[in-house]
Amino acid sequence: MKRYALGIDYGTNSCRSLLVDISNGAEVGSTVFNYPSGVLGILTDPRDPHVARQNPQDYLDGLEAVIKGALAQAKGGDATFDSAQVVGIGIDTTGSTPIPVTKDGTPLALLPEFADNLNAYVWLWKDHTGHAEAAEITSLAAKIRPQYLAKCGGTYSSEWWWSKILHLRRIDPAVFASAYSWVEHCDWIPAVLTGNTDPLTLKRGVCASGHKAMFNAEWGGLPDKEFLAQLDPEIANLRDRLFDVAHSADTKAGELTEGWAAKLGLKAGTAVSVGAFDAHMGAVGAGIKEGTITKILGTSTCDLMIAPANKPLADIPGVCGIVNGSVLPGCFGIEAGQSAVGDLFLWLVNHLVPDSYGSSVGDKFVAMEKAMSGQKPGASGLVALDWNNGNRTILVDHRLTGLLVGQTLHTQAHEIYRAYIEATAFGALTIINRIEEHGVPVLEVINTGGLSIKNETLMQIYADVLGRPMKVSRSEQTCALGAAIFGAAAAGAGELADLQANMTATREKVFHPILENQAVYAEIYAIYLTLHDAFGSKAWNGSLYPVMKKLLDIRERQRG
Amino acid sequence: MKRYALGIDYGTNSCRSLLVDISNGAEVGSTVFNYPSGVLGILTDPRDPHVARQNPQDYLDGLEAVIKGALAQAKGGDATFDSAQVVGIGIDTTGSTPIPVTKDGTPLALLPEFADNLNAYVWLWKDHTGHAEAAEITSLAAKIRPQYLAKCGGTYSSEWWWSKILHLRRIDPAVFASAYSWVEHCDWIPAVLTGNTDPLTLKRGVCASGHKAMFNAEWGGLPDKEFLAQLDPEIANLRDRLFDVAHSADTKAGELTEGWAAKLGLKAGTAVSVGAFDAHMGAVGAGIKEGTITKILGTSTCDLMIAPANKPLADIPGVCGIVNGSVLPGCFGIEAGQSAVGDLFLWLVNHLVPDSYGSSVGDKFVAMEKAMSGQKPGASGLVALDWNNGNRTILVDHRLTGLLVGQTLHTQAHEIYRAYIEATAFGALTIINRIEEHGVPVLEVINTGGLSIKNETLMQIYADVLGRPMKVSRSEQTCALGAAIFGAAAAGAGELADLQANMTATREKVFHPILENQAVYAEIYAIYLTLHDAFGSKAWNGSLYPVMKKLLDIRERQRG
Repeated sequence: MKRYALGIDYGTNSCRSLLVDISNGAEVGSTVFNYPSGVLGILTDPRDPHVARQNPQDYLDGLEAVIKGALAQAKGGDATFDSAQVVGIGIDTTGSTPIPVTKDGTPLALLPEFADNLNAYVWLWKDHTGHAEAAEITSLAAKIRPQYLAKCGGTYSSEWWWSKILHLRRIDPAVFASAYSWVEHCDWIPAVLTGNTDPLTLKRGVCASGHKAMFNAEWGGLPDKEFLAQLDPEIANLRDRLFDVAHSADTKAGELTEGWAAKLGLKAGTAVSVGAFDAHMGAVGAGIKEGTITKILGTSTCDLMIAPANKPLADIPGVCGIVNGSVLPGCFGIEAGQSAVGDLFLWLVNHLVPDSYGSSVGDKFVAMEKAMSGQKPGASGLVALDWNNGNRTILVDHRLTGLLVGQTLHTQAHEIYRAYIEATAFGALTIINRIEEHGVPVLEVINTGGLSIKNETLMQIYADVLGRPMKVSRSEQTCALGAAIFGAAAAGAGELADLQANMTATREKVFHPILENQAVYAEIYAIYLTLHDAFGSKAWNGSLYPVMKKLLDIRERQRG
Repeated sequence: MKRYALGIDYGTNSCRSLLVDISNGAEVGSTVFNYPSGVLGILTDPRDPHVARQNPQDYLDGLEAVIKGALAQAKGGDATFDSAQVVGIGIDTTGSTPIPVTKDGTPLALLPEFADNLNAYVWLWKDHTGHAEAAEITSLAAKIRPQYLAKCGGTYSSEWWWSKILHLRRIDPAVFASAYSWVEHCDWIPAVLTGNTDPLTLKRGVCASGHKAMFNAEWGGLPDKEFLAQLDPEIANLRDRLFDVAHSADTKAGELTEGWAAKLGLKAGTAVSVGAFDAHMGAVGAGIKEGTITKILGTSTCDLMIAPANKPLADIPGVCGIVNGSVLPGCFGIEAGQSAVGDLFLWLVNHLVPDSYGSSVGDKFVAMEKAMSGQKPGASGLVALDWNNGNRTILVDHRLTGLLVGQTLHTQAHEIYRAYIEATAFGALTIINRIEEHGVPVLEVINTGGLSIKNETLMQIYADVLGRPMKVSRSEQTCALGAAIFGAAAAGAGELADLQANMTATREKVFHPILENQAVYAEIYAIYLTLHDAFGSKAWNGSLYPVMKKLLDIRERQRG
């Protein structure tokens, strides 16, 4: 009899289910639920663009809707399908997305007295109100706990756990005092499904805590009280109401309660695994293994690698995070990423592409790809920096902006589009080189996310720039697929490695580097790197006089 | 009885007449003639984009059409008008636009045997086929005649006289041998009208010869034969068939022949003045005087100043040319310019502005100006280099390209448009500073050309960036007006200075700097100058790390 696992993927604007056959990864059901609250599910404050909150009720309503939807689809596709065949459930979410909760684990936002106060709601990953607190945490850690920073690339972010909690403490001490504890979104959903939302005992994931809350077994878990007290004594006190242990996502968080089982139409006692972040589970769903980098290509990108935890691993400066067990148990998860990729192209097409390319965004992209297809690398004479939204990995600096050089009076929009695709490829290569320089060889690249499936031009340019074959994950929902794999593992349905091998695959079409393009891109990459260091690094000192000359030389050669 | 003068202005695609009352500058007739040959009057070669030739017959046909047209208009406007009241004719043209001619001054192109050979036609200013020869001339002069280069900014251009003639010698020796001599377009028209086209005796202008043919009384006129022989012995021989004297444009070239008088409906014996280039006569028509810089704002810009020739004047590195008498007799004419101004905006609107701003080029410009009107300087966080067509003055380098820095995911087209307006203003300020640093104070700025009349946003930004009031010339046709002033002077109708004072004026509306904008632009200009030197100067060495940070600081401050 077939066995299935359910993966639930909580995104920024919606959540989605994926019901998967654990023997072969066949996807038999998937439903999306758009969060009804706020604007596209985000609660904002017109007075402060940094505010981004969510309503936890949306998560609960979505959970029910997408699971029921997937089960109904499976039944529709195969009348013999029985929901009792679902053996495990896995959860992934965005993060760091912390929720202030009561002593019994109820989100404050669900209590009537806090209904009107956004500070009591869920603090979505992209809430940047804590930027001053992030700088304060970075500065304090640099002074007294440099080891904390070494694992998160050297800078603590405003998107992360402590920045948000400290900011709340500063701006709304009443709500802060009402929050007995805090729970990450990815930990709260398994807690709800398994009926143990007690903040002191619910099973926390090492992915969220390690990457965002500076949790590390090396220093005994969360940051020590002396450190936290220097931020605020109340934050130090909060540490006692948090957790000392964190688990990898193959761990069973618990079993589905009678209540939820009845509500969802599943079997009570179904295994629920510990939660983790979307990109990390997406890496597993894409088929991550030692030597493989998985790239989730979306509005931004998230790159993940693993390295065996039983061997020493050097800190990798500028890389977002290195956490034992955050992707797969027994391995360091190495996270990197680019702040704008799809967003960069969308910005261009929305703001700087005339209608001669088409009247819709989609038509414009198609026409631009067609227009650039006859052009050789370097023929436009352009090079760009991919920093319109800052630089997340390597420079770890949000206060960087875009740059485009090489324009003439003949430069066209599709040439700029290509330059931006190339810039994101150069950014990706810089990340790979940095990881390799620190002892982790990158032997395989597996891409996933919308751009990898829809944009063949981009995939070929990536192959040419990275000098490696570009593989694309078979599933279009690698995050939810990864969650399903962990659900199955938590259910004891097989060894994690076997489950991953059976349930994941890459597509037949592989984009191989074209040697002559690769050689030209090596030249242009040297120029990119000069600009990258010149504008991005305090230490750089030099001359930029050759930049425009070299671009013109390459352009003339490539135009023939 | 009223007296009138005629100015004929030969542009790149058309020529135009202006019939002016010499007592007050009132414009009583003006007609345009579009050159019928080639594409918009330009003969091109599909195999070589550098080729740009013209048909001298277009000049003759245009001459007749525009003079007759202006006279008819004057008569139409005032029945008492009598063409015998026209006392003088002045001519301006593009340049360097040399014409290969026979011994009697007939352009080879008008002979049937050369009808099919573009090399025998007029070599239009923007013909760049002689770029290798230009480099050769620059290099030879740097070695053995550095004084030649000192007067033309350090680099001899492919657009100029000797580059073109030497190139013809190299690629088509037969046509070269058939050319007894060469005449600039601006010298040939007065020669034709006055009936003396003998290359050895027709009156040559010092404007064309001084700015483009390295003619200078200091070294005895044209470059010496030893120098020319090192380029090619035949070029040295050609020197004997050219000229030893060159005149300022107030000189009378001769008198209108019976034949042309009859053809045009003018009085035989009417004075015709020596020709000069459009920008130089435009400066006079705009009201140039000591301490005034005139800026002709068109697709590119041409800036002119004068300095008394009886006082020593330092060479000004990077300035296009310094020639005694090229603008006004008794003064050095100092020419500078920017390679792309209006062209830069046209490129942007044609290639990178979506139709949400409007469906026509005009609508888009209007909408962009409106959109930017509420924004403070620096609020976009952008800064650009105005080098999409290279840098003509200061760096004198065609192998430079555009640069834009500071883009985010919210940057809009009108913000980029503004950044390019500002970039051209920064370029203009760099030129003014360079001239002032070499002992020529800039006390007044008079603008002319389409942009100065049509684009008030641009004029205000120029005032704020240059920190000086921006005046705008009253006439929309300052080049033809300047030519008319010289025609009147050659006729002895008054002192040149009085004629200029009577016939020119600036508009009532003056754009005054807004102090708070001026202060912000001073900060942004420092960033522009850093980028200018970093990318444009071999000697620069430094750090660009502060660029993006400062732009963000300014942006945040200006957005409030």
